[in-house]
Order: sequence, then C-alpha cells, then structure tokens
Amino acid sequence: MRLLIDMDDVMADTGQKIIDETNKRLGTSFTKELIRSSAEITADFQEKYTSVRSMLWEKGFFADIPLMQDSQEVIKKLYDKYEIFIVSAATEFPLSMSEKLDWLAEHFPYITWTHTVFCGHKWMIRADYIIDDHEKNLINFEGKGILFDALHNQHVKDFTRVNSWKEVEKLLL
Amino acid sequence: MRLLIDMDDVMADTGQKIIDETNKRLGTSFTKELIRSSAEITADFQEKYTSVRSMLWEKGFFADIPLMQDSQEVIKKLYDKYEIFIVSAATEFPLSMSEKLDWLAEHFPYITWTHTVFCGHKWMIRADYIIDDHEKNLINFEGKGILFDALHNQHVKDFTRVNSWKEVEKLLL
Repeated sequence: MRLLIDMDDVMADTGQKIIDETNKRLGTSFTKELIRSSAEITADFQEKYTSVRSMLWEKGFFADIPLMQDSQEVIKKLYDKYEIFIVSAATEFPLSMSEKLDWLAEHFPYITWTHTVFCGHKWMIRADYIIDDHEKNLINFEGKGILFDALHNQHVKDFTRVNSWKEVEKLLL
Repeated sequence: MRLLIDMDDVMADTGQKIIDETNKRLGTSFTKELIRSSAEITADFQEKYTSVRSMLWEKGFFADIPLMQDSQEVIKKLYDKYEIFIVSAATEFPLSMSEKLDWLAEHFPYITWTHTVFCGHKWMIRADYIIDDHEKNLINFEGKGILFDALHNQHVKDFTRVNSWKEVEKLLL
C-alpha cells in the first residue's frame, strides 16, 4: 500500500512558524489558541499574516520548522507497513526545496530523495492514501484522502479528518 | 491527454554540459561524436566523467544547460494539445531545483510551478505519455513510455525510441 504524506502543517508545524514569524516581524502576540478563539481574531491574524507573507520566499524560512507533535514516532511506524512518499507543494517556493531535503534528512533520515516529491498539483500521483491539509490535494486523488486538521480547512466536510498523528496511527495502523 | 516531459537529456542538453565541464576540468577534448565513435572512447570518457561527477552537486551546474535542439518549438506546440507536466528526478541534487525553475521560466515561461515535479521515482505519476531518457522511468509507468535517445540508453529495446524533438512532433502531433 502506498501512502503520500504532505510536509507543511502535516509533518511539520509550519503554521506555528508562520505565527512566530508574524509576531516577530509585526510585534504582535498571536497564538494558535487565540487565533482559533474567534472569527474576528482569525480575520485580524489573516490580514497581518498576508502583509508579511513574502517571508515564505525568503532563504531560510523552511529550514527550522518545528515538528508536528508525534509525527516522527507515527511515521516511523507507518514506514514499516506502507510504501511512503513525501509529497510537498514546494515548487511555489524555489528556495524551500533544498531546505526541505535537509529538514527531512535531519528528522526522517530513512526517507530518501527517491521517495520525495516537490510539486504543484498532487492529484496525478497514484497511491492508496494521501494525508494532507488542503482540500485541493484530496479532490481528484484516486486513493483515499485523509484531511489533517488545520485552521484553514475547518469548512471541508468530504474527507476523513484527523486531528493529530495519534489519530492517524489509529486509522492506519 | 496528459504528457510528462523529463528535463535532463530531453528538454535540456545536459549531456553536452557534462562533456564541456569534463573537458574544462580535465583538459580533455571529448565531443559527442567522438564519444559515440568507439566503445573504447566511450569507456574512457565514462571513467573521466566519473572522476568529476561530483560537479552535479555544485551550485550553478544546472543554471546554464543548453537547450536540446527544437525542444522549445515542439514543446510549445505540444502544450496546445496536451496537459504537460515537467518531471525531473532532481531531488538527488538539492541545489539544482531552484536553478531548474529559473531555467524553465527563461526558456518555457508558460510552464508554471503547478505543473513542475521534482522527484526521485516517476512511475507513480498518472499520465498518458512520458518522454524520458531513462528506462527505469518508463518501466512500471501506466501510460506509454517514449524513450528519448541518449548514449546511455542504446541497449534499451522495449520502448518507442525518438532521436530528436522533430521525431516527437511526428509521433504526438
């Protein structure tokens, strides 16, 4: 069985890095909990984040993303049962790709370049499962799409939702 | 119809860059014609190239690869008829990917990051056709594999071989 795993906001807590960097650059003090606490604060954060979003194209941004909780532990277990490909929509961010390879080598050293895919669209990759936080990557995918919970996908209802890697473990192991 | 197109030795004449750089670094004077002229010279070149092959991992190597003859003209025509994805086994060379995106933007500006894939394996991508110079990328591919002629694939007999972009044009247009 082949399993595709997304990086940002799935293996890696890119949302946390975005909040931290936004706070640093704008002198704000958003937290994940605060942003989720009301639609008004969500909108305020979105506006502020948009104003500094060009940071995603800066050298170094993707070099030190924190791990998503339990991703190392559960992906290691999944690796023993599934053929795993890491699939990241990274071609939008040209400088991110070498940083993402280094990040994978540091945190998931058993995953090699042969099983790493940087792309735009993902739905043309053949696999049994994909774990991703973006609806666009699950639509038209030929296998089963598993939606990793994120603030920006709360409206999506058509796919199995997992809220954590512990839930992925229960679902797939 | 979806068509996957490889970069190195298909869109881009990477073999020529490799010969030029090998000559420059070792003071040799190989040409494509000379290398193909005898098995002895082929082996001599392979040995010398192997000794400088680490250049593929150097910053800048993939920035200025010459175009393969007629690739711009024919791919533009193919783009009007096929859904085209560029698929390059570039994750082996971490620094190559931003250079490859720049190269595509310069020579094929209508191909965007959404339709660019940098990966290791390619056979899990769903498409009707792939044009590639490596047998390993055609085996297990679900569509039709088209082998782009190269010195290193002369032994491959199982796929439709094209010797030039003009032959691709005849075959697919």
